[in-house]
Amino acid sequence: MNPHLYAVILAGGSGTRFWPLSRHLYPKQLLRILGEKTLIQQTMYRVLHCVPPSQVLISTNPAQADSIRFQLREWKDELSHNFVIEPEGRNTAPAIALTAIELVRRDPQAVMLILPADHVIKGDRNFQAAVALGADLATEGYLITFGVKPVRPETGYGYIQPNLRARLASRGGLKGYPVARFVEKPDAKTAARYLRSGNYYWNSGIFVWRASAILEELMRHQPALARGMKKIGALQKSEAGGSAVAQVYRRLTPVSIDHGVMEQSSRAAVIPVDFAWSDVGSWSSLEEVAPRNDSGNVVSGRVVDLDSRDSILYADRRLVATIGLSGMVVVDTPDATLICPKARSQDVKKVVEILKQQGAPEHLEHLTVFRPWGSYTVLEEGPGYKVKRVTVNPGGRLSLQLHHQRSEHWVIIAGTARVTCGERVFDLGVGQNTGIPKETPHRLENPGSETLHIIEVQNGPYLGEDDIVRFQDDYGRGVNTPRSPKV
Amino acid sequence: MNPHLYAVILAGGSGTRFWPLSRHLYPKQLLRILGEKTLIQQTMYRVLHCVPPSQVLISTNPAQADSIRFQLREWKDELSHNFVIEPEGRNTAPAIALTAIELVRRDPQAVMLILPADHVIKGDRNFQAAVALGADLATEGYLITFGVKPVRPETGYGYIQPNLRARLASRGGLKGYPVARFVEKPDAKTAARYLRSGNYYWNSGIFVWRASAILEELMRHQPALARGMKKIGALQKSEAGGSAVAQVYRRLTPVSIDHGVMEQSSRAAVIPVDFAWSDVGSWSSLEEVAPRNDSGNVVSGRVVDLDSRDSILYADRRLVATIGLSGMVVVDTPDATLICPKARSQDVKKVVEILKQQGAPEHLEHLTVFRPWGSYTVLEEGPGYKVKRVTVNPGGRLSLQLHHQRSEHWVIIAGTARVTCGERVFDLGVGQNTGIPKETPHRLENPGSETLHIIEVQNGPYLGEDDIVRFQDDYGRGVNTPRSPKV
Repeated sequence: MNPHLYAVILAGGSGTRFWPLSRHLYPKQLLRILGEKTLIQQTMYRVLHCVPPSQVLISTNPAQADSIRFQLREWKDELSHNFVIEPEGRNTAPAIALTAIELVRRDPQAVMLILPADHVIKGDRNFQAAVALGADLATEGYLITFGVKPVRPETGYGYIQPNLRARLASRGGLKGYPVARFVEKPDAKTAARYLRSGNYYWNSGIFVWRASAILEELMRHQPALARGMKKIGALQKSEAGGSAVAQVYRRLTPVSIDHGVMEQSSRAAVIPVDFAWSDVGSWSSLEEVAPRNDSGNVVSGRVVDLDSRDSILYADRRLVATIGLSGMVVVDTPDATLICPKARSQDVKKVVEILKQQGAPEHLEHLTVFRPWGSYTVLEEGPGYKVKRVTVNPGGRLSLQLHHQRSEHWVIIAGTARVTCGERVFDLGVGQNTGIPKETPHRLENPGSETLHIIEVQNGPYLGEDDIVRFQDDYGRGVNTPRSPKV
Repeated sequence: MNPHLYAVILAGGSGTRFWPLSRHLYPKQLLRILGEKTLIQQTMYRVLHCVPPSQVLISTNPAQADSIRFQLREWKDELSHNFVIEPEGRNTAPAIALTAIELVRRDPQAVMLILPADHVIKGDRNFQAAVALGADLATEGYLITFGVKPVRPETGYGYIQPNLRARLASRGGLKGYPVARFVEKPDAKTAARYLRSGNYYWNSGIFVWRASAILEELMRHQPALARGMKKIGALQKSEAGGSAVAQVYRRLTPVSIDHGVMEQSSRAAVIPVDFAWSDVGSWSSLEEVAPRNDSGNVVSGRVVDLDSRDSILYADRRLVATIGLSGMVVVDTPDATLICPKARSQDVKKVVEILKQQGAPEHLEHLTVFRPWGSYTVLEEGPGYKVKRVTVNPGGRLSLQLHHQRSEHWVIIAGTARVTCGERVFDLGVGQNTGIPKETPHRLENPGSETLHIIEVQNGPYLGEDDIVRFQDDYGRGVNTPRSPKV
């Protein structure tokens, strides 16, 4: 494979359409939708067929970086400088521009394979072959997109028509063509016609191009964005604070790379690919990739069902009982449940929008939140108190911290805890407990080889995660930043 | 009203058809289905229009007695000797026989008004008038049942045809007739014909008769049951242990009073009543009595809905999101969720049966369990630990107890706790905590005027409620009974 090839995993998406399993701060890419690996882990394994881990860049945002680092901890060292963190989501064009600038800085001949972190692809060998042909054409200056053969008259995707009379290249059974035209999400009748014609492909959102080529095309078709990016590049060179960069970035107009560049560029080309692909873009799309039982149901977790068919029944920790459902989606999570017909599953995003407007926490994050040292789960919250189960990985430790407004009580339920409380450092085993008064510097650490579990009871007039002063942190997270929502 | 009139509230039903809101140990009568009062509280208020509280008997079983005493604590003194506790549910005939024997012992002329604890009736004055006429006819020796005018061709109820040509009595606008015949649940066509004819009434399950009369009829039509009851009466007089009584009772064949006596007796009479009645026998029946919104939905709790209609959407503490449902029932509780079309809501009992066969806790009780001193809620349970929120009413205290296999940690989150731990007695306020080692006698008490809330973390290899040795208890619950599941 081309030694100048880099993979860019776009991992900044929000979790609107897979709510309530996905959340704004815990989007689809972090979920185990199928199998043992999460979607971003599957994506990482996929690109490692094409590039070494040190040539993988992760494009994400500050809210998701921790969870992604945790899920990709297997490549901790190789990825340590490969996170390109957007200050805020601005759709794909600015995110790609940011990584392109970084790649040109590292390697002026860099070719970028860009793929979303949250797609399902079956057929790694076919994927690899498509990337190889894509890299060839990218080196020649083309902006390549992968076209997927439609299997149904989908109205939720964009379509690409190749110019079949102007073949650019071929390799194995694969061919590349100039793009005749892009079509935005068509109506049902048009989609059916495209399916019959056999000459339209779904736009997969997977791209290959030279980093310098996409920057040129951005300058041509999105000059305002290109100017903003130039400013950001200059600020980065001058080692100005991240807040100056963030300020410029936040003012960029959000635009997708498809709409902003591909649909306008004369260099756009398409490779019709032969691997199975799904963007698992909604609950109903799950059945394309998940196994169904004899009644046509996709079932996960503790479900007691009578006579349902063609439904998606997802239970988490609680019991879900269903009777006589047909074509329904039921998703149960510890703090929210969704019920809708499959045909309405695109409207889940409207529910998330309503929750966002209400300021409801259920759109934002789960009761379980992952951190580099482990995780915590809110068991209950009420006036003046909060109860959490805190899990610390072997060797992990939370930051040395204090809280102004709350005291904490810890009871060890599994493993061994090393506790720092003021000047004292001591170990506690199962069934032992300690109290941390407010205003007292403290730290929780797992010195053992077994995962540590504690129950934490917080008391105080204010229990927000932002009542924290941090003195030392193992995970490179800023200290003394009382406004950071990290523990 | 007749001074020999007694009300018997049948409160031994199980919670099959309103699952998951009702449970085997927390049946429908204990629920707030409508308004501020639970169904059994509504029933109590209803009968107090007819009899003084000291003439109300509660027929129930050991598992539900605590919760019922708690809900009827307003009449604690008057009801203190009025609980008739069946050792085990044996359908209505044995339960009624047991209360009839007790009433004849208290007052040979006793007339019994018998009504289920879990029906909804609107119109207390009309109810009172029907009871008055019923008591008159009961004194003449009739076995009275109240007939409700059908409002739909219901196939789930029994029907009664009165012999209109043989009127027995009238009072106000009400009349009593001999029963021409009882009809078991009819098919849809027959039910429609009954509705049109206007000469059939729903069997409400509310009865009035002399206690001695029902015992005579039981002897005639259920001789085996009558012999068993006689044996029980003799055992009670001889002050034999409750276990001897229980042994006889458990061997009785379960039979309903309708099938076992009313359908066979020549003394059966019916009073067509003019109050609104519902047995709220399934989720779909809820809409007869609950207010609907503009879309025809009955909504309770935190529900975010888009475009649903004619549905029952019940959320408890968590968020429920629904899109485009039609004629569905959605019921969400802290440990179980039900989704089914309204037309299938009778099949909820099949789900409960499956759960029972699986030994699943969700058929048996809620995560929140009521006790005479307050309640507890299981927040989480895992290997070697359990986390509970415990609520103690002002002045309430748990028994003085010890556990062989578990230690407990208490953190006060509201109110003041008086703690006995071994020889020490001390008070704790909000944010304070203490640990109770295993094998240590201890007690938790609320000396304040505000409700006490604590978080309890249990640790140990065995955490069943039956690991308890009780030394003293305020609520008349047996002490030193290590197998009793009460704390």
